[in-house]
Amino acid sequence: MTEVRREASGRSVAAVIPAAGSGARMGGRTPKQFRRLAPAPILLLTAGHFARHPAIGSIVVVAPATHVRRAERLLRPLARRVPVAVVPGGRERQDSVRLGLAAVPAGADVVLVHDAVRPFVTTALITAVIEAARRDGAAICALPVKETVKRVVDEYVETTVDRSALWAVQTPQAFRADLLREAHDKAHRDGFVGTDEAMLVERLGHRVRVVRGLEENIKITTPADLRKARARA
Amino acid sequence: MTEVRREASGRSVAAVIPAAGSGARMGGRTPKQFRRLAPAPILLLTAGHFARHPAIGSIVVVAPATHVRRAERLLRPLARRVPVAVVPGGRERQDSVRLGLAAVPAGADVVLVHDAVRPFVTTALITAVIEAARRDGAAICALPVKETVKRVVDEYVETTVDRSALWAVQTPQAFRADLLREAHDKAHRDGFVGTDEAMLVERLGHRVRVVRGLEENIKITTPADLRKARARA
Repeated sequence: MTEVRREASGRSVAAVIPAAGSGARMGGRTPKQFRRLAPAPILLLTAGHFARHPAIGSIVVVAPATHVRRAERLLRPLARRVPVAVVPGGRERQDSVRLGLAAVPAGADVVLVHDAVRPFVTTALITAVIEAARRDGAAICALPVKETVKRVVDEYVETTVDRSALWAVQTPQAFRADLLREAHDKAHRDGFVGTDEAMLVERLGHRVRVVRGLEENIKITTPADLRKARARA
Repeated sequence: MTEVRREASGRSVAAVIPAAGSGARMGGRTPKQFRRLAPAPILLLTAGHFARHPAIGSIVVVAPATHVRRAERLLRPLARRVPVAVVPGGRERQDSVRLGLAAVPAGADVVLVHDAVRPFVTTALITAVIEAARRDGAAICALPVKETVKRVVDEYVETTVDRSALWAVQTPQAFRADLLREAHDKAHRDGFVGTDEAMLVERLGHRVRVVRGLEENIKITTPADLRKARARA
């Protein structure tokens, strides 16, 4: 055990960095904090899971209007498995999903919606939401809220929230195609903006089934910062 | 615009993958979903931010008992800037923090606690929590809850939760050293386990200040899955 033998002059703050987790959830002998991050084009990884899934008959990717060609090129390797359409998106996520939905073939009876930046989705999770949607019409995946959540008033903690019964929503979300179209049409007519597809369906009074998501099914938000961090290391 | 021209036989599920975000929060011309993820040893990145911070006089890293040597080797480049101690951890995160706290030099008046797997912390955020802790004794950083949160009963959505006033807690958290020691001692005596350091301080009836965290200050949980995903792509 190394000891702290001196303090840099004028510096009286200490940092404790718990890095003692065994990484049991990840498996393998090396705890995660010692692992390296690997390069990969996120959208291709994500779409690949759906292209390889035996129940998926078509994929619609909604790309920024300026990146439709790029997305098409990127996704070309998947076209051997399943038709992939790339359509330009709208202002907000909900608009983009609506535009994507318009490009879904009429023969699809279930439609999945999945965030492009969740590349760790699995075949089993896709299957689970599809099956739940076939049974109940609408299904999401979610995990019990794990982060500490505080109720904050005027910049001070009022209380640490009881998070039991609270679930953080992931994607994929799956719906009977007609139900999702109805939910989007109504939201569009009403000018209602939800934070996920399920909210639009809940508005119709329709029940939404919850299946257990996956810890690793994270939403990646800042790979650019990761590169910058690496460059600084 | 490419159109979906056919469906693979017997596959009636469609996937919509919104990838239309402009990545405005990340800056740069390439939306995040098209970027690659870069390799980097997470713990070194994380600890580096503290080693380079002008107020930090010492760092204590709490490592798995089996990985103390490895962590020492990994962190050696930082020792030019600031003393770095590596101590073996305990069963739970709270035990590890308590053991780390015991290795903090007596001269430190403020102690920061920061997750090893949050490598995107910034100098400015570290400064902000230190300053808030000097003023108020205890400070955390947090962000308004952004994920859709549902209250779930018996596997169905009861309601989409109103998340206003709910903040998701990050690290670093900063405390006057005496206050954090008192909070940990009392929790240890009482057998109380909190989900963050602030909870232990809240138990003492002490106010905890909230400063705004950073979107990019994410907790990385599954780099191994990322590597696997890459290998499969």
